[in-house]
Amino acid sequence: MSPAVMDSVAGTAGQQVFLDELVRHGHYLPSGEPGVYGRGMVFEEVRNRFDALVTRVCAPDKPETPRFPPIIPRRTLEKAGYLKSFPQLCGAIYSFAGKEGTALDLAERASRGDDWGHYLSMTDVVLVPAACYPAYPAMALRGPLPLGGVTLDLGGSYVFRNEPSGDPARLQMFHQREMVRIGEADDVISWRETWMARANDIFNQVGLDATFAVASDPFFGRGGKLMANNQRQQGLKFEVLVPIASPEPTAVSSFNFHQDHFGSAFGIRLHDGTVANSACLGFGLERITLALFRTHGMDPGDWPKDVRGNLWSEAAASAPVR
Amino acid sequence: MSPAVMDSVAGTAGQQVFLDELVRHGHYLPSGEPGVYGRGMVFEEVRNRFDALVTRVCAPDKPETPRFPPIIPRRTLEKAGYLKSFPQLCGAIYSFAGKEGTALDLAERASRGDDWGHYLSMTDVVLVPAACYPAYPAMALRGPLPLGGVTLDLGGSYVFRNEPSGDPARLQMFHQREMVRIGEADDVISWRETWMARANDIFNQVGLDATFAVASDPFFGRGGKLMANNQRQQGLKFEVLVPIASPEPTAVSSFNFHQDHFGSAFGIRLHDGTVANSACLGFGLERITLALFRTHGMDPGDWPKDVRGNLWSEAAASAPVR
Repeated sequence: MSPAVMDSVAGTAGQQVFLDELVRHGHYLPSGEPGVYGRGMVFEEVRNRFDALVTRVCAPDKPETPRFPPIIPRRTLEKAGYLKSFPQLCGAIYSFAGKEGTALDLAERASRGDDWGHYLSMTDVVLVPAACYPAYPAMALRGPLPLGGVTLDLGGSYVFRNEPSGDPARLQMFHQREMVRIGEADDVISWRETWMARANDIFNQVGLDATFAVASDPFFGRGGKLMANNQRQQGLKFEVLVPIASPEPTAVSSFNFHQDHFGSAFGIRLHDGTVANSACLGFGLERITLALFRTHGMDPGDWPKDVRGNLWSEAAASAPVR
Repeated sequence: MSPAVMDSVAGTAGQQVFLDELVRHGHYLPSGEPGVYGRGMVFEEVRNRFDALVTRVCAPDKPETPRFPPIIPRRTLEKAGYLKSFPQLCGAIYSFAGKEGTALDLAERASRGDDWGHYLSMTDVVLVPAACYPAYPAMALRGPLPLGGVTLDLGGSYVFRNEPSGDPARLQMFHQREMVRIGEADDVISWRETWMARANDIFNQVGLDATFAVASDPFFGRGGKLMANNQRQQGLKFEVLVPIASPEPTAVSSFNFHQDHFGSAFGIRLHDGTVANSACLGFGLERITLALFRTHGMDPGDWPKDVRGNLWSEAAASAPVR
């Protein structure tokens, strides 16, 4: 990483203190790269317990639960219009398609730590930027949706964002626990509202100080400012914010109404042949885990009894949350 | 994908028939790209049951269970010498670091499906090529290993290989369920032997026709042939092969002794300061799931009672496997 980039990604003093604490307690294992960490056993236990809580809350929706790998065809990213909105965050995968002599040069440069990028070429796959992206073309392929549309629980999927940062809550790859609803606009909007109430319950149960706010995506450039304003004015995106390690609270969950953006891009039809609307919502599992450590302390053994109960008890596992 | 590449990745007739069958039963959800599929609910249930069986077998090792994301610093790949051995399989991540005017050009070309690769530049991260790679620098950072070394269970981690293929058992990104042992050579070798016996038990329990064989990695180029021969002669790699959809059985599991390769590359020391040896072993979870469908049928409800019992019963969950 060049010094200029290093500089721009440096975290605040408070973020650095929290990062050091996470490393000292074995919750984060540094890789040498900002925003890329291994996670210790206790961190993972908490993350999985929170994930299971979301699964229990999701159960009444009787969702389908397909799973997708963290790569999609480059064409899917192009069709979704991602490169118009977020080119700075994309992750395209390059590899080596050359011959033996070139391979030797590549290996030699790589072993010295010199640049070897010019030996590579673009492949046909890119990293998944949001957990729901692979789901839209998969649903379109099935033909018109059944009456009532479809509800998906995509589990905790890895997504990529090219934004190296000294903030331990801003990872280059993290688990988005995402649910998707595709159908008529009214159904999709009311499902999103139900989930905002459910999320409020969930954050109460785990003792996090959660605030809901209208939000916008980090659209690129000057044109992006207009898109962001438009998104806010129409109330297309809401976020849950909780204190982690930044001066301002950090977004840990979002609730997004796409109108017919993905329906049009991928040709998803309702049972009557009209274009489908969609909404998705996601919980940032690593951020929520960090918020729990930040709020309740580095050792879950010391956490408030009701928070522990809601995350760990079998009673909580069987009782309906909402 | 260009027609030339399409041609080279086409599967055999038998592979295409099996792929069609997987899609028809909802086990695979096509993405439009060879080697990139969503997975249906039943597929995932089977994959997770097999994964849980491996966890039960692993328990006596009392492993540490850290988790790593599917990206590592580019520098880690360089230091591990991966680019000397497998440049053709690597996945380097590129993104956009340009300004507004260029972004508009990029988006326009992308929306037309034209090449936009020349607008991107190399980032400092690459995809994980084998689940154990992130573990070595993380262990080195801790300082000298405790007496007896360390045993890691890395869970089912996504790894990337740039090898688009019409064979449904050759995925570009898949779950490697990997365990690692780092310590003295004798300990590491005998742990690998223990696990080859355990793996034999596991494949028996799930009714797969497993063959053990000395093997080698797909080293690149002419020089690679020498490396592969050397690897075979020294018995550094063993594989488990089972019938899936190719004329020959497919590798679903491997057991690898690295000697001091990773210990030297990353500076991992034993308690006495000498360089550590290491071994790793992995189960290819998607391939094993495919082998189960291929061997026992597309509906797990029809599978042999003992296989179902070993994968699903609670008794199997509590009884030690070995």
